[in-house]
Amino acid sequence: MAETRGVALLGSTGSIGTSALRVLARQRDRFRPVALTAHGRHELLAAQVAEWAPAYAGLVQGGDDLPAGWHRGPACLVEAALRPDVDIVLNAVVGAAGLPATLAALEAGKRVALANKETLVVGGDLVTAAARTHGGTLVPVDSEHSAILQCLAGRQPHEVRRLLLTASGGPFRTWASDRIASATVADALRHPTWQMGSKITIDSATLANKALEVIEAHHLFGIPYDRIDVVVHPQSVIHSYVEFVDGSVLAQLGAPSMELPILFALTWPDRVPDDGVAPFDPVALGSLTFEPVRHDAFPMLGMGIAAGRGGGAAPAVYNAANEAAVALFLQGAIPFGAMPALVAGALDRFGGAAGGTLEALWAVDAAARAHVHAQAGRLKG
Amino acid sequence: MAETRGVALLGSTGSIGTSALRVLARQRDRFRPVALTAHGRHELLAAQVAEWAPAYAGLVQGGDDLPAGWHRGPACLVEAALRPDVDIVLNAVVGAAGLPATLAALEAGKRVALANKETLVVGGDLVTAAARTHGGTLVPVDSEHSAILQCLAGRQPHEVRRLLLTASGGPFRTWASDRIASATVADALRHPTWQMGSKITIDSATLANKALEVIEAHHLFGIPYDRIDVVVHPQSVIHSYVEFVDGSVLAQLGAPSMELPILFALTWPDRVPDDGVAPFDPVALGSLTFEPVRHDAFPMLGMGIAAGRGGGAAPAVYNAANEAAVALFLQGAIPFGAMPALVAGALDRFGGAAGGTLEALWAVDAAARAHVHAQAGRLKG
Repeated sequence: MAETRGVALLGSTGSIGTSALRVLARQRDRFRPVALTAHGRHELLAAQVAEWAPAYAGLVQGGDDLPAGWHRGPACLVEAALRPDVDIVLNAVVGAAGLPATLAALEAGKRVALANKETLVVGGDLVTAAARTHGGTLVPVDSEHSAILQCLAGRQPHEVRRLLLTASGGPFRTWASDRIASATVADALRHPTWQMGSKITIDSATLANKALEVIEAHHLFGIPYDRIDVVVHPQSVIHSYVEFVDGSVLAQLGAPSMELPILFALTWPDRVPDDGVAPFDPVALGSLTFEPVRHDAFPMLGMGIAAGRGGGAAPAVYNAANEAAVALFLQGAIPFGAMPALVAGALDRFGGAAGGTLEALWAVDAAARAHVHAQAGRLKG
Repeated sequence: MAETRGVALLGSTGSIGTSALRVLARQRDRFRPVALTAHGRHELLAAQVAEWAPAYAGLVQGGDDLPAGWHRGPACLVEAALRPDVDIVLNAVVGAAGLPATLAALEAGKRVALANKETLVVGGDLVTAAARTHGGTLVPVDSEHSAILQCLAGRQPHEVRRLLLTASGGPFRTWASDRIASATVADALRHPTWQMGSKITIDSATLANKALEVIEAHHLFGIPYDRIDVVVHPQSVIHSYVEFVDGSVLAQLGAPSMELPILFALTWPDRVPDDGVAPFDPVALGSLTFEPVRHDAFPMLGMGIAAGRGGGAAPAVYNAANEAAVALFLQGAIPFGAMPALVAGALDRFGGAAGGTLEALWAVDAAARAHVHAQAGRLKG
C-alpha cells in the first residue's frame, strides 16, 4: 500500500466538507485529513477535530474561546493549504474568499480539488496561469465539471465540438416569470434534486450558478464560450456531457451525490473502488428529459455568460454583485425578482474595468458589493 | 496531410457496407477503399466499383459473367484482407463466414474494424490470441461496443465494475409471450429504432443479438460475464454504458446511425471532424427510459449468455444454430416461437464439445446447422 496523501479540507463544516469527510472515512488507506478549516461553525469543527485529530485546525471567523492550538482568521486558509504535509487542497470555501488559498496551493505545485467555483470565476486567468507556471493541478469538484473531466479523459480541445452543462432548472423551472419575481426564501431553498448550502441553492434558483459553471468550464477546459451550452435536465441524472467533433456524445451519469466528484478529484486520473454511491439503477430512474433554458425567466444566466465573455473584471463584478444580492435576499431585505437588476446595475457600472491583478479584482469586488447594497437600500427607501 | 490509409471493405453492399462508403466519401483525405467485396449483390457492387475504382473487387457467390478482373468465391475475403495496400479491414460480412478474414488480417498485424460479431462469438479465443500475438488491433463497429470502447478510453479492466449493454427491446418488447411465438416475418422485420439487415433484425427481435454482443464484449474488453449486463432502453439513444468501481457511470449517446461507430473504428484512438451525424439535440429526444429484460419472453438472450459462459464450442453452436433457425424463419419454414427450442436442442447435443481449433469450430458449426434443419423438418412433418 502506498503512503496516504495528506488533504487540507477548507470549509470542512459545509455541505461539501461533511460529504468529503464521509468519503475520507471510507478511503483511510489512501488519504488522511491533516488540516481542517471552517468559516464559523466552531462546534461542528470541534467535533470533526475530535474525530479526525488533524495536525491543523482553523476558524475563519468568530469563536472567542477556541481550543488551544486552533488557528484563527482568514489567513488560516492559505496557512492550511501551504503546510508541507498537505498534498491535496480540497477547497470548499463559499465565495471569492476561497481564491487566495487556491492560488497559494497551485503556486506550491499542489493539487487543488476545487469546489469553490468563485475561484475560477473571479480569478480564472490568474489561477490557470498559476497552475501552468508552477505545475499545480486543478481538478473540479462540481458535479458538472467532474462529469466533463471524466468524459474528456485526456482528449484535446480540438476534438471537442461542445460542452453541455446540464441544469436541474431549480425550484422555479416551471413557474411563470411574475411568480418567480415574488418567490420567498423558503420557495427558493426548496431545490428539487440536490441538497446543498443556501448560497448555491439560491444560485440554482436564479440559474446564476449555471453561469458561474460556464465560466468555470471555460477556464478549466480551455474551451471558448461559444462552444459551451446549457440544457435543462430536471432529473439531474446526466451530470453533463461532451459532444465531440465526430458527433459522438459522452455523458457522465449518477445519483445527485457530491461524494463521487469529491472522490474523483482526489484520485484522478485513477479510479479507486468505493461503495459510497448506490449502484446505478437505470430502471429505477423513471424517465430522463431535457428542456431548453427559459432565458426570459432566468436572466441571471445570460448575464453571467456575457460577463464571462466580456472578461477583464466583468466576471468578478458579476460574482460579487450576485453574492451581495443573494445575501440580501436570504436576509429578507430584497425580493427574489430584484436580484437580476441589482447585478446588472453593478455590471453596467464596473464591468468594463480591467482584471489583471488580484488587487484590481478585490477592488472591483468591493465596489460591486457596495453598489448592490446602495442600490438595494434605495429599493427599500 | 498524412497519407491516406487503405481500407478493405468486406460486405460492401450490405447495410454496414453502404454506410461505410458514405463515411469514406466524407473522409477522402484520410481513407481510401482499395478493396470491396460483396456476398452476391453483383449489380450494386458493380456500381460501387464504378464509383470508387478500388484496386480489388470480389464476389463471394454467384455472378456468372463478372466484369474482367473481379475475384470470385469465398477466398476473396481473405485475399482482400491480406493485400499490402490494405491497412484496415472493415469486416461487415454476415455470419461466421467472416471469421477467416478477421484472423488473417490480425495475423498480418492489421487493424480489423469488426462489424461481424460472429467472428468473436465463434472464435473469440482464437481471435483475441491472434491479435495479442501478432500486434493486430481489433476495434468494434457495433454501436454498443463502440460506446463501451469510447467510455473505457484506455481504462484498465480492474477499474470497471460493470458493462451495461442497452437493448432497444426490438419490435416485441411489449408483446405477450404467446403473441411473440406466432409473430410473422413482417412483424419481426419492423425494428422500432434501427434500420439494419434482415439477419440482425431478427436477432434483435429474439434478443439473440444481445447475447452475441455480451459474448463479443467479454472477448473485446476482457471483462468476465458476471460483470456484463443488459438493460432495455427503447429509445436507443444511450448506446451502452460503463459503471466504474467508484460508482461513476459513463455513457455514449447519439442518433441510431452506424456511421459514427464505423468512423470511430477507423480513426480510434483519435477523433476527426465529421458532420455525417446530426448534432445531438437532447430536447428533441423526448424522454429516455429503461426497463428490465423480460427473460421469460426472450429466452434466446439467457441461452446465449450461458453458452458464452460455458465456453468451448458452445458459443459457436449457439451462433450456428441461431443462424440456421433465423434463415428457416425468414424462409417461412418455421414459426418465430420455434427458434429457441431449435437452438436449445443444438446446444444440448453439441454444446459440450471442445473449441480449441478453427477446424473443431467448423465441425460443430456444421453439425449444429444440420441438427437444426433436421429438427425443423420434423416440426413440419
